[in-house]
Amino acid sequence: MEQDQKRFTRLDPVIHARNQDRWSGPLGEEALSRYERDGFLWFEGFFSQERVRPFFDELKEMAKDTDLVKSDQVITDPDSGDIRSVFAMHELSRRFDELTRDPRILGMVRQLLGGDVYIHQSRINDKFGFQGSGFNWHSDFETWHSEDGMPRMRAVSASIMLTDNNEFNGPLMLIPGSHHYFVPCYGATPEDNWKDSLKSQRVGVPSQQNLRDLVNQGGIQAPKGPPGSLLLFECNTLHASNKNLSPWPRSNLFFVYNSVDNVPGKPFCGHEPRPHFLANREDHEPLSMHDNLEPL
Amino acid sequence: MEQDQKRFTRLDPVIHARNQDRWSGPLGEEALSRYERDGFLWFEGFFSQERVRPFFDELKEMAKDTDLVKSDQVITDPDSGDIRSVFAMHELSRRFDELTRDPRILGMVRQLLGGDVYIHQSRINDKFGFQGSGFNWHSDFETWHSEDGMPRMRAVSASIMLTDNNEFNGPLMLIPGSHHYFVPCYGATPEDNWKDSLKSQRVGVPSQQNLRDLVNQGGIQAPKGPPGSLLLFECNTLHASNKNLSPWPRSNLFFVYNSVDNVPGKPFCGHEPRPHFLANREDHEPLSMHDNLEPL
Repeated sequence: MEQDQKRFTRLDPVIHARNQDRWSGPLGEEALSRYERDGFLWFEGFFSQERVRPFFDELKEMAKDTDLVKSDQVITDPDSGDIRSVFAMHELSRRFDELTRDPRILGMVRQLLGGDVYIHQSRINDKFGFQGSGFNWHSDFETWHSEDGMPRMRAVSASIMLTDNNEFNGPLMLIPGSHHYFVPCYGATPEDNWKDSLKSQRVGVPSQQNLRDLVNQGGIQAPKGPPGSLLLFECNTLHASNKNLSPWPRSNLFFVYNSVDNVPGKPFCGHEPRPHFLANREDHEPLSMHDNLEPL
Repeated sequence: MEQDQKRFTRLDPVIHARNQDRWSGPLGEEALSRYERDGFLWFEGFFSQERVRPFFDELKEMAKDTDLVKSDQVITDPDSGDIRSVFAMHELSRRFDELTRDPRILGMVRQLLGGDVYIHQSRINDKFGFQGSGFNWHSDFETWHSEDGMPRMRAVSASIMLTDNNEFNGPLMLIPGSHHYFVPCYGATPEDNWKDSLKSQRVGVPSQQNLRDLVNQGGIQAPKGPPGSLLLFECNTLHASNKNLSPWPRSNLFFVYNSVDNVPGKPFCGHEPRPHFLANREDHEPLSMHDNLEPL
């Protein structure tokens, strides 16, 4: 199983705003350097708990929409059958759409990606108490490159916590510095791999030797905080999460921003592209700021 | 699934040394009260790392003994086939036997159980990096009562860490205060349940409502520390552990001490008793202190 232990040094910059543009904000050099070094930035309590509650409530409403729940856009837990993910949230709801264009998030994302961006994918991940399964180590870029044909590492995920994320409810774990390498994964991508891999990942996992080396180099971090906390992580940062063995639900929102200069082409794995709700191939219109600056 | 949400208040004392005997040491009243309240005591770095290394090395030697590995006494991981547990370690090795009789551990255990004790079970639990599966919430007493016929709650487990236990390698999680209740579990015990349940537990899990209530009351704690750390936990304290998603192995030793006044009778589930290496029904001779007091 340890046949392929190679890894390649990243070719793309981590921060795409260059030279003077790097310093035009909103992020200062300290935060930028940390993002460059670790591959993520954590903002504990970025939004207030009151600000994020309506998103959580709207999700509960969606769970009552039986047509939606039966659609491919909704992923249920292999064990319990409960809703685990809803994709393309921002197309279903004005509230989510406006949040993707919140000037404070969008400003940082434009700086990191060096220009205009659009949403490649949006989703909510919900781990119910005692039920949510975990997710093996992976780089999102590896999937987006292979299965969606995303050419370069020029995307960033914004994850907004809708519930407390703590030690026991399966928080996201990241390997700081892992985004500096492209770690090839085992096995050819099977056709329609997404139908399976969204539930539990069996192919496309980095070798244990590579994981061991990268963890020995950078360690593991699992940011924890109250609802409203924000994580920005680079598309190639290795991450995983464990089961939720606590009674506390863990519900996180993900917006994947991609540079308008990095739109997906033909998938590199040779299969048909994944559906629109997983990989937006239709609308690459640059996001405009939602200029009604609501209180954080 | 939520049909049986009852739980019963514990009938047995938590600390069995009564009146003046409670205060004859070695544990002071502060530690005793904490054990009484939480159902466990954590001693970070109780032994030095040098002191525990030989036990770890001996375990590696045992893994080379193919006859032993093939025996029922050794449990392999359902996914990887690696050694996950070895039972009755103290019967295989003088070093382990002497450790069960270390005066410092034995003194505390005698005080907690109010008199002489013997080993009901000893085992080592090994979670290899990336491989160790988790274990659902359970009380050991529930199994020992039902499957081994242990009459009362008068046993304590001593767990000695042979490796670092940290946030990411699947440390033991406990629900403080859960030992005050007897939480019935679902479903009748199948015959020879132990063959299956040692690998992954499917029956005998407390109801989610009970777990939720107990966690809301007492929270969850996962003691962490270096090799040599010691955990004493009451036989009825609910505990669980998550997968090891890190490259760091997690190897813990368990000695289960039972009072000589609490020897198992006929199993309450009505089946044949479990094998000797899981539940000692033969040798109830009180443990004597190993009086060569090696340095901690």
